[in-house]
Amino acid sequence: MQAQSINYISGLSYPSDTTSEPNRPRNLVLLGSTGSIGRSTLDVVASNPNAFRVLALAGGKNVKLLAEQAEAWRPSYLAVQDDQARQELLPLLRYQPEVLSGQEGYVSLAALPEADLVLSAQVGAAGLRGTLSAVRAGKLVALANKESLVLAGDLIRAECGRSKACILPVDSEHNAIFQCLGLQSSQINHSDAVQKDCSGLRRLILTASGGPFRGKSREFMEKAGKREALAHPTWSMGAKITIDSASLMNKGLEIIEASHLFGLPDRLIDVVVHPQSLIHSMVEFEDNSILAQLGPPDMRVPIASCLGWPGRMPNRSSGLNLLGLPPLTFEAPDASNFPALNLCRAALNGGNGLSVALNAANEVAVILFMADKIGFCGISRLVAAVLEKWDQRGAPQSLEEILELDEKARRLALELSKTT
Amino acid sequence: MQAQSINYISGLSYPSDTTSEPNRPRNLVLLGSTGSIGRSTLDVVASNPNAFRVLALAGGKNVKLLAEQAEAWRPSYLAVQDDQARQELLPLLRYQPEVLSGQEGYVSLAALPEADLVLSAQVGAAGLRGTLSAVRAGKLVALANKESLVLAGDLIRAECGRSKACILPVDSEHNAIFQCLGLQSSQINHSDAVQKDCSGLRRLILTASGGPFRGKSREFMEKAGKREALAHPTWSMGAKITIDSASLMNKGLEIIEASHLFGLPDRLIDVVVHPQSLIHSMVEFEDNSILAQLGPPDMRVPIASCLGWPGRMPNRSSGLNLLGLPPLTFEAPDASNFPALNLCRAALNGGNGLSVALNAANEVAVILFMADKIGFCGISRLVAAVLEKWDQRGAPQSLEEILELDEKARRLALELSKTT
Repeated sequence: MQAQSINYISGLSYPSDTTSEPNRPRNLVLLGSTGSIGRSTLDVVASNPNAFRVLALAGGKNVKLLAEQAEAWRPSYLAVQDDQARQELLPLLRYQPEVLSGQEGYVSLAALPEADLVLSAQVGAAGLRGTLSAVRAGKLVALANKESLVLAGDLIRAECGRSKACILPVDSEHNAIFQCLGLQSSQINHSDAVQKDCSGLRRLILTASGGPFRGKSREFMEKAGKREALAHPTWSMGAKITIDSASLMNKGLEIIEASHLFGLPDRLIDVVVHPQSLIHSMVEFEDNSILAQLGPPDMRVPIASCLGWPGRMPNRSSGLNLLGLPPLTFEAPDASNFPALNLCRAALNGGNGLSVALNAANEVAVILFMADKIGFCGISRLVAAVLEKWDQRGAPQSLEEILELDEKARRLALELSKTT
Repeated sequence: MQAQSINYISGLSYPSDTTSEPNRPRNLVLLGSTGSIGRSTLDVVASNPNAFRVLALAGGKNVKLLAEQAEAWRPSYLAVQDDQARQELLPLLRYQPEVLSGQEGYVSLAALPEADLVLSAQVGAAGLRGTLSAVRAGKLVALANKESLVLAGDLIRAECGRSKACILPVDSEHNAIFQCLGLQSSQINHSDAVQKDCSGLRRLILTASGGPFRGKSREFMEKAGKREALAHPTWSMGAKITIDSASLMNKGLEIIEASHLFGLPDRLIDVVVHPQSLIHSMVEFEDNSILAQLGPPDMRVPIASCLGWPGRMPNRSSGLNLLGLPPLTFEAPDASNFPALNLCRAALNGGNGLSVALNAANEVAVILFMADKIGFCGISRLVAAVLEKWDQRGAPQSLEEILELDEKARRLALELSKTT
C-alpha cells in the first residue's frame, strides 16, 4: 500500500493572505444556482445571512426557480442559458436586475469586478467557460464542476499561476482531502509555501462507495439496466453522476481532478472502497499518520467548508452521530469489473487531450446506456475503444482546442458504438 | 451529541514562527530516555540521523541502558536519578559527558541554553519538575508526561504565557487532535492567532479502546484481579497506565489534559469508545465535518509527529493497511461501570487542586490494587472518597503547593482505604 513519499505539492494556487479578506459580506457569484449544488449553496448562505451578498445567480433554463431565488436574494445580476429563457424570466421578476444570457452571460458574471467568490456549479462541459473566466479574473473559485479540471486541468493550472486565482474543491472527496491537508491561508499561497508545509505527504486516498454493483458478478453487470445502475446506495444525485458512480468512472475522473488540484501523479492517488460513504477521503503522511474527514452525506458540508474557508461555517446538515454509525469498512476496488479506474489513470498519464477524449466518450456512452442502446459494461468498453483509437497526442492549448477535441471524441464514440 | 460551538481556543501557546527554525540539526534533550517513550524517541531519531543532535539524556536508574544510549548518541550531558546511580554509571561510559543527578539534574538539562526541543517522558509526578523547567526556559516541549498537565495545568499555562514556551502533545490522543486541528506554526503562536484560525471548532472527541472490561458486568469487574486488568486489548504499556486504561481513569485524565492543552471546558471534550484503537481521536467542527487521525498503535507515530513538527518525519512504525483493518466501530462509554470519567470531569471543574487530589488518590489506589489490598472497583471508590473528603478548594500557585497537596491526598487516600 505504500507509495514513494514526495516532498512537494505543485498544484493549483490558493490565496496568499486572508488578512486582505474584506471586512464585509463576501460578494458571491453562483453559477448553476438552480441545480442541486446551487440550491444547497443558497441553503448554506441562508444559514449565514450576514456573511454574503448574493451578487449574481446564473441558472440555465429553470426560470421559475431562478425567479424565486432572485426574489429571495435580490442579486444585481442574473444569467440564463439563452434568449428564450431570458424572455421567459423577465416577466417573473419583481425588480430590475441586469439579466444576461448565453455562455457570454456566464463568462461575464464569473469575472464581475465586485465578485469575491465564484461558485462554479454548472453541470458538464458547459461549466468550463465560467470556471475559466473566474480563474482568469483571479477570483477565489469554489469548484463544483467536475469537468473543468478533467477537460482543462493543465489550462486552469496555468491560468491560476498567471492570475493568482485560487481554487477550493467542493466535491466531497477533494474537499475532504483539502481539509485533511489543513490547507490554511498562510500555507497555500503559492507553490513554495505549499512545498514547505505539505512536505511529508505520502498519498491521497479517495474513498468510493463502490456503487450499486459492488460485489456483483460480471454476468449481473452485463445484464444490468437503468434501474439497477441508478440505485446508488448512499448518495442521492443526478442520473449522469449516479451512472458514473456505478461504473466507478466518477471515481476515476476524481483521480484526474485530484491530480490537477493537488499537483500529484496518479501513483500517489489511491482509491479505497468504503461502502458506508462516511469517510469522504483521507491523506496518508510519511510518519504513517492518516487524516480522514467524516461527515454526513450532505453536500452542504463541503459547500460550507468552501464558503467559510479558511474558517468554518454552520449549515443545516445533520451532524454525524458517531454512536449510530454502521461499522466503517474498507475494501480494494475490483479493477476487472470496474475498468473505468484504470482507463482514467491511463488517460491522466496520456496528457490532457486523452482526458478530454475519455470524458466525451463516457458522456456519449452514458447517454447510449440510458437510451438502452448499450449495456452497462458497454460503457467502459466504448470508452476503452475510443482511447485505443485516439491518435491525437498533443495537449490542447486553449478552450477552443479542448472543445474541438471533445467534439471529435464524441463523434468517434458514436461511430465506434455501432461496432463495439 | 452536539455541544455549543465555541469561537476560540485559549490553550497553551505554540511557536510563533518556524522561519526562525535553526537551519541545523535540532538539539534534543530527552528526559526519561530509558523508558518506553524514551526508547521509541531514540528509534525515531535513529531514522532521521541528520535532523537531530542528542544533546542530553536523562535516564532514572537503568544505568546499563543509559550507558548504551550514551555510547550510541554521545550526548554532552547525562542525568540519573541519584548519586548512587551516578556512581554506577560513570565506569560504564567510554567518553566524558557531564553527568548530573537528582531532580536538579533533570531541571538543569531541561533548561540547557543550547536545547531546541525537550521531550519530557518521565513517568509520574516526578516528570513535572523537568517539564516546568523546560517551559520556564521557553523551550519547544514535546510532552509525554501525563501528570504535568493534570497536576499543574494552570501553572504550566501561565508559565507558557510568560516564556513563550510551546507544548506539542506526544500522547496519541492529544497528538491526533493536534493533527486534526492542523495546528501549524503560523496559526498557533499565541491565543489571538489561534482564536482566528480555530474558530468553528465544536468539540474534541477522545477515543478510548474501552480496555479489558468493556462490556463486562459489574460483578465481573468487582472480582477482577491483576491478570484481568492488565490484559489490555490493543496497546502494550506499563502496568500503571494499563490499570488506568482498564478503569478509564486514563481517559478521564486525558480529558483534563486536553482541557489544558486546547483551552476548552470539559463539556466540549467527549469520549467515545472505539475498541479497535485505530482512530486515535477526532475533532468535530461547526460545519459538521469531523477530522480523525488514524495510525498504527505505535508511539513512534505521535513521537515523530512532535519531533518533525511542523513537518512530517519518517519512522520505523508499520503503516496502516486500510484493506486489512477490522470494521471501525464506536460506542458510548458506560458511565456507571466506569465512574472514573465523571470523577475526572468533576475534578477538572473543581479547580487544579482537585485534579492533584484525584491523581494522587488514583496512584495510591492502583498501588493497593496491584498489592491485592483492594478490588478493581475499589480503585474508583477510593478516588471518589478522597474527592468527597477533600476540603481544600483553592488552586495551588506553585510547584511546592502542588507537591504538598499531592502528599496530603496520598495520606488521605491511604487513610480512607482502611475504611472504604
